[in-house]
Amino acid sequence: MHERHPTCQVITADDELFLLDCGEGAQEQMNRFKIRRSRISHIFISHLHGDHYLGLPGLLNSFSLTSRKDPVHLYGPAALMPILDLMFEAAQANLSYPLHFHALEEEKQLVDGKKFTVTCFRVFHRIECWGFVIREKEKPRKIDPDRADDLDVPTSFYPSLKEGLDYVHPSGRVVKNEWVTKSSNPPRSYGYCADTRFDLSIAEKVIGCNLIYHEATYLDDLREKAAERFHSTARQAAELAQAARAKSLLIGHFSSKYEDISPFLEEARYSFQNTELAKEGVTFLIEHFQEGHFPEVRG
Amino acid sequence: MHERHPTCQVITADDELFLLDCGEGAQEQMNRFKIRRSRISHIFISHLHGDHYLGLPGLLNSFSLTSRKDPVHLYGPAALMPILDLMFEAAQANLSYPLHFHALEEEKQLVDGKKFTVTCFRVFHRIECWGFVIREKEKPRKIDPDRADDLDVPTSFYPSLKEGLDYVHPSGRVVKNEWVTKSSNPPRSYGYCADTRFDLSIAEKVIGCNLIYHEATYLDDLREKAAERFHSTARQAAELAQAARAKSLLIGHFSSKYEDISPFLEEARYSFQNTELAKEGVTFLIEHFQEGHFPEVRG
Repeated sequence: MHERHPTCQVITADDELFLLDCGEGAQEQMNRFKIRRSRISHIFISHLHGDHYLGLPGLLNSFSLTSRKDPVHLYGPAALMPILDLMFEAAQANLSYPLHFHALEEEKQLVDGKKFTVTCFRVFHRIECWGFVIREKEKPRKIDPDRADDLDVPTSFYPSLKEGLDYVHPSGRVVKNEWVTKSSNPPRSYGYCADTRFDLSIAEKVIGCNLIYHEATYLDDLREKAAERFHSTARQAAELAQAARAKSLLIGHFSSKYEDISPFLEEARYSFQNTELAKEGVTFLIEHFQEGHFPEVRG
Repeated sequence: MHERHPTCQVITADDELFLLDCGEGAQEQMNRFKIRRSRISHIFISHLHGDHYLGLPGLLNSFSLTSRKDPVHLYGPAALMPILDLMFEAAQANLSYPLHFHALEEEKQLVDGKKFTVTCFRVFHRIECWGFVIREKEKPRKIDPDRADDLDVPTSFYPSLKEGLDYVHPSGRVVKNEWVTKSSNPPRSYGYCADTRFDLSIAEKVIGCNLIYHEATYLDDLREKAAERFHSTARQAAELAQAARAKSLLIGHFSSKYEDISPFLEEARYSFQNTELAKEGVTFLIEHFQEGHFPEVRG
């Protein structure tokens, strides 16, 4: 309704894409917004309500249609794989690539990649539901080659400089690391809180994230209804972002009963200024944050 | 791709809607084309490839969101219901209405409604696959009230006149039915051949239909590839319509590798003039046929 689709978020992690949920119609939206599906390497499904995973079987099948060979890592509630297996069996589907399913069972680190880690945490929905935090790893220090050259550090030592080591000349003279390098941008992080009723304990899980996504199904005048249905309000999302000392907040999952969603923004910004609406196909760059500037980059 | 969606057709049968297949995104298209979902009473799923039923779980769930009470009759391969059951269980979904599932097991009449019948027949796809014929029932004869009055037929006998009976006066004088009635329009029929390789035996199943839908995944230069993949070409669809002595033909399910689908129309019309393309959201009125006029009514 109102041209809004079920949930699916694409996180660009360097050359790989991470998918957070995959609602019905996700593929069509990917076509529309020119997302290169072949680069999707990890898919995280928060819970088994249809609006969060009904686009997945079609996507997994499409990978085969393009003869994909690269593995796909799929994370979700344990009950997901039996459903997919039954569907594959009914369709007599043979996937062209390895599909590795990882059932979510406890709060832990799921992915330890070269540049990113992903952890999962429990949220509070009507059925088993998980949130995810994607964290960039600490980046190597940046070398100032002119300074390093002036102080006679051999280029063969540069990899060690990037890791923060001091250089010691054969003579015993020490070149302190900070004289010839500077720190890279601090690592970024994104906390995806999926569908959940408001619960302040979630703030600990996403503490200090550059960007938090928190659902806001209702406006705050319906906070009782929200709690009953295990959903949150825009104001609650903002309170959570504040408690988590997040740099910025993205709210979404607005009930289809609201045609105009601008009051959500207003309500959330009252408590947490750096809020934006999760609109269809908008890309948010999670950047090294400058206060007061919300990092939306394109529509 | 190219703004074409998976298969889903809506058949308006008086005040009820019959759904033929329900691919991913069907609900969104229904919103777009203002289809009143509450009136959908019967859903027929031809086979369990995702592009023909992945929109179904979401639709069945949406019925509950609007607190539907009217039953839904669902027809499909036996393996469909276990998949849905597992999904409902995972979502802890309680449908607000009775869902009656009828597994397709043999070619037979599935629905015997007041005005329509629906039968199923086997087609030839990579997995178990079914076609459907929706046939209007013979309509009552139309009374000419002036003529009936002239011949002193009492109005209490009108229901019998509609059924084609003669009236016999107490005096023994006979009023022949055809003197005071005329036949209604002949009943209409629609044959839906789902996904199938070309097989002339299908023509018998849809013989004389006012409108046949036959897939045309490829153009005829790829007829070998079509056969291998259990699909058909535009020319084959036209040959089938000809063999079935259909009044008109609708072709669809074009491979996404074709950006321009106009050659399909050209190819099919070469063998069967009354052909149209099954485009998104176009309504075809299955009417009492006038030669040379294809009954497309709105875009």
